[in-house]
Amino acid sequence: MNDLFLREARGEATERRPVWMMRQAGRYLAEYRAVRAKVDFLTLCRTPELVAEVSLQPVRLVGVDAAIFFADILLPLDAMGAGLRFVKGDGPSFEHPVRRREEIGNLRTPDVGASLGYVFEAVAAVRREIADLPEPVPLIGFGGTPWTLAAYLVEGGGSQGFPRLLEWSYRDPEGLSRLLDLITEVSIEYLEGQIEAGAQAIQLFDTWAGLLDLERWRRFSMPGVVRIFEALAGRPGKGGRGVPLIFFAKGAGHLLEALRDLPCQVLSVDWRQPLSEVRKIVGPGKVLQGNLDPAALLGPIPEIERLTARLLEEGAGGSHIVNLGHGIFKTTPPDHARAFVAAVQRLSARPA
Amino acid sequence: MNDLFLREARGEATERRPVWMMRQAGRYLAEYRAVRAKVDFLTLCRTPELVAEVSLQPVRLVGVDAAIFFADILLPLDAMGAGLRFVKGDGPSFEHPVRRREEIGNLRTPDVGASLGYVFEAVAAVRREIADLPEPVPLIGFGGTPWTLAAYLVEGGGSQGFPRLLEWSYRDPEGLSRLLDLITEVSIEYLEGQIEAGAQAIQLFDTWAGLLDLERWRRFSMPGVVRIFEALAGRPGKGGRGVPLIFFAKGAGHLLEALRDLPCQVLSVDWRQPLSEVRKIVGPGKVLQGNLDPAALLGPIPEIERLTARLLEEGAGGSHIVNLGHGIFKTTPPDHARAFVAAVQRLSARPA
Repeated sequence: MNDLFLREARGEATERRPVWMMRQAGRYLAEYRAVRAKVDFLTLCRTPELVAEVSLQPVRLVGVDAAIFFADILLPLDAMGAGLRFVKGDGPSFEHPVRRREEIGNLRTPDVGASLGYVFEAVAAVRREIADLPEPVPLIGFGGTPWTLAAYLVEGGGSQGFPRLLEWSYRDPEGLSRLLDLITEVSIEYLEGQIEAGAQAIQLFDTWAGLLDLERWRRFSMPGVVRIFEALAGRPGKGGRGVPLIFFAKGAGHLLEALRDLPCQVLSVDWRQPLSEVRKIVGPGKVLQGNLDPAALLGPIPEIERLTARLLEEGAGGSHIVNLGHGIFKTTPPDHARAFVAAVQRLSARPA
Repeated sequence: MNDLFLREARGEATERRPVWMMRQAGRYLAEYRAVRAKVDFLTLCRTPELVAEVSLQPVRLVGVDAAIFFADILLPLDAMGAGLRFVKGDGPSFEHPVRRREEIGNLRTPDVGASLGYVFEAVAAVRREIADLPEPVPLIGFGGTPWTLAAYLVEGGGSQGFPRLLEWSYRDPEGLSRLLDLITEVSIEYLEGQIEAGAQAIQLFDTWAGLLDLERWRRFSMPGVVRIFEALAGRPGKGGRGVPLIFFAKGAGHLLEALRDLPCQVLSVDWRQPLSEVRKIVGPGKVLQGNLDPAALLGPIPEIERLTARLLEEGAGGSHIVNLGHGIFKTTPPDHARAFVAAVQRLSARPA
């Protein structure tokens, strides 16, 4: 088994650095598009065999060192009764957005095992399929942070500036915190379910952390993240050891001093912060993950190799899981993704 | 005349801090919406009397200490032949996007005086109308940075992640720099024209600076900004003195060490960086502008007043033009904008 990812995430010695890519199971692969041509997005998420197929594609076709199962971070909100829809070209939308304290009661506390059981079946299906690979890799589970999930739920979908969410945060911060608490509770059960089903690491995505300054991030986003990580830290995975916990925030350069204190092993860094500078701020207690500009994969392969070599230098001061600094663009040529992954695997060998 | 804004921008002593708001002439005002109900967006931009009317509204109705004339940063690209359109709800789009080196030749180098003369007439009209106020205020001119203008031009309009722009930047950086140079030249003439017509300060907006890490910002955005500021620094305004130059970048916390070196008087800071920390990095050579979270104006007035008082403390270490950290939300109650402006004017008095 290729367990480089898990060992690097735990800060253990490895022969070379592991590499995977955010959104690696996705539309840049013709093989993914072929699956999506047959089923819509939510049907794909709800069909374990198809989730297994697309989650394994980047392992088989691109050669990454870890799989992440295919899903959407908004699925738990659907289970809470918000009515998730995906309209082609428009992204996600909710039939029942929640915009004020009085509307929180419209949500239900779901039986997670029943309403999100299809996710756990998918996780198990991915693990089974991975076991049949010539060289199995670890499987990453994931979710959105309560703040980021609330952003979509309050707005009713994606948004430029999330004005309704922000309005609520200033008008009735206690009310919004109640919503965040409720999402936190469901998220804990949801992520525990993923671990029980076989996820070997958990990454939380705080895509909209950057809406908040440091003080407001500590107030609105951090408490849920800490509660989730503390709950998960106590749960051994199927292998008997605690699963590594990873935190990713976009546009979080101004939040680093708070991220240092998160109870997780790995910080995933967006493409705008040089890893060497992040390490200076967060110290040796965190493994870093990242952070090639995903747009670099749109450029020529020799340039990708040059930038990858430079990234490896940037990350050389400690444990480092190589990744992009954000999700891969859907216009990325698969050859370019392969060149990135191969360059990491070739250039990061550590002397024995 | 109320020249607090100009004096503060030059680092001179003032009786109290001046305040204005980005996007202060806009849809949060019923009086603005009444004008827009009669004409479309581009017709408004091209009608000097209407520009004067909406540009003066926030001075008359909200009490700000400076006016900024109403226009769109993309107008120079329209003059270059890109074919700017505004479709209701969809924002700006270009009929003739420029996506590779070979397409740069499709743009024309415009006779700025002829093709953008309507802007200069509007600037002059605003100045005339300001002169009739009981207490005239300074008029700010503005433009987008070449990088930010190119972002829209390459993409053909707004975009989530600007993949075509970023692809070009990695595939053919020299070609993209040629486009940026061409936009820079037109921008210099355009902004000089505003100054000749009566603009008393110039603000450059680098809305999409945050797509770039520090090294790439220095490569793609900074050169045009420096050329523009150096060209304008030599031009006395109508009053005979050089006009203060202001730079605003969104999501630029990771760029501060480069911003310190820009040849301009004022740095406008987005809502995520505490002014006291920005001052530590950029030093005493820069006047700071900003940076209340515009979402704070969606909250209750006592909270707006509390946050304004705190902002005044944050900015107290040097010259400080009070503003929002980004454009005002269109859902802002005008009363709340007035409360913010009044709080600054009441609370920032300096002992004589």
